[in-house]
Amino acid sequence: MKNIKKWKILKEADVSPSKWFPVFQHTVELPNGTVIDDYFISRMIHAVMVLPITKGNKIVFTKQYKHGLGEITLELPAGFQQEGKTPEESALAELEEEVGIKAEASDLIRIGEVSNVPTKIMHIVHCYLVRNAEFNPKQNLEVTEDIEIVAVSPQETLKMIKEGKIWVADTVACVMKASLLYPEIFAGFDRESKK
Amino acid sequence: MKNIKKWKILKEADVSPSKWFPVFQHTVELPNGTVIDDYFISRMIHAVMVLPITKGNKIVFTKQYKHGLGEITLELPAGFQQEGKTPEESALAELEEEVGIKAEASDLIRIGEVSNVPTKIMHIVHCYLVRNAEFNPKQNLEVTEDIEIVAVSPQETLKMIKEGKIWVADTVACVMKASLLYPEIFAGFDRESKK
Repeated sequence: MKNIKKWKILKEADVSPSKWFPVFQHTVELPNGTVIDDYFISRMIHAVMVLPITKGNKIVFTKQYKHGLGEITLELPAGFQQEGKTPEESALAELEEEVGIKAEASDLIRIGEVSNVPTKIMHIVHCYLVRNAEFNPKQNLEVTEDIEIVAVSPQETLKMIKEGKIWVADTVACVMKASLLYPEIFAGFDRESKK
Repeated sequence: MKNIKKWKILKEADVSPSKWFPVFQHTVELPNGTVIDDYFISRMIHAVMVLPITKGNKIVFTKQYKHGLGEITLELPAGFQQEGKTPEESALAELEEEVGIKAEASDLIRIGEVSNVPTKIMHIVHCYLVRNAEFNPKQNLEVTEDIEIVAVSPQETLKMIKEGKIWVADTVACVMKASLLYPEIFAGFDRESKK
């Protein structure tokens, strides 16, 4: 068994082309003594994601255009942690702003964290579950947001992941965490092999 | 139902701080006519990931330090699509280089694609399954790679995801795709609720 060690950061330079895309150049020393002076990373730090299940037993997704990928995606409501807010407060805010669901802190069930692209990015997504979610009449979107709300049953959600219709990694990972922690939500899904 | 539309790219400038971290500044026109001149994205394009299952029914993971995140992670063997190679060829190359498993193109079972951080990045991961994998004696690592090979049963894999020990989003998403497409691999896992 190897003893995997972390790298040591000898120097950091902020080479961000914009505050909207932070990039840092690191000079790092590897455990074997090798020094690399051009390792580039981005820090997006903390994001939040909520898997809301309505009283009618539907999981609520957002359908929107994502310009990084250049495609229209189905994802769980999510966003970056908001300034001056805890992950929990940010999760509640995103849930209300993106899909018009108002919930309380006591409604948030923590289902864990997932990390995106750890080779190049520091980006940790805090995932929550909210049961018995109820819609308010209005969304409160940012100018870059144009969101359709799509509600599907838990079983249909698994089918859509299986078929690649839901394919954004952190959304799929949060659904998987929820399905492992609370399998009763997804009960009745026909687990039948492709072969 | 809304009609979600893509954005139009009016102008693109390469503002990459390094070829190792490509960043582009876009001037975009939103469907509502709003023009934004400072939307930044990164294109990492195509990556490949393989879920190898050995003849002894273990899934093979890599344990390594990931400097973007700054943590030691357990992930499926993966890498960027290599120049001049198809995703399939790249998947076979990564599998051999990272964990010393030699497989043939006919061994690769495509389990679909997942996308990482679509708001800011174009990064599509092609996921494959390889059954009856056999180890060669040697890895062939890059200078920045120091990898421990960790092999665990499919059932233990699900438990580790449930407990947050495996938490990188695309790895979790690929395991989920595999578990939905080929549930027999994961049969016997005790799906018991947390409550």
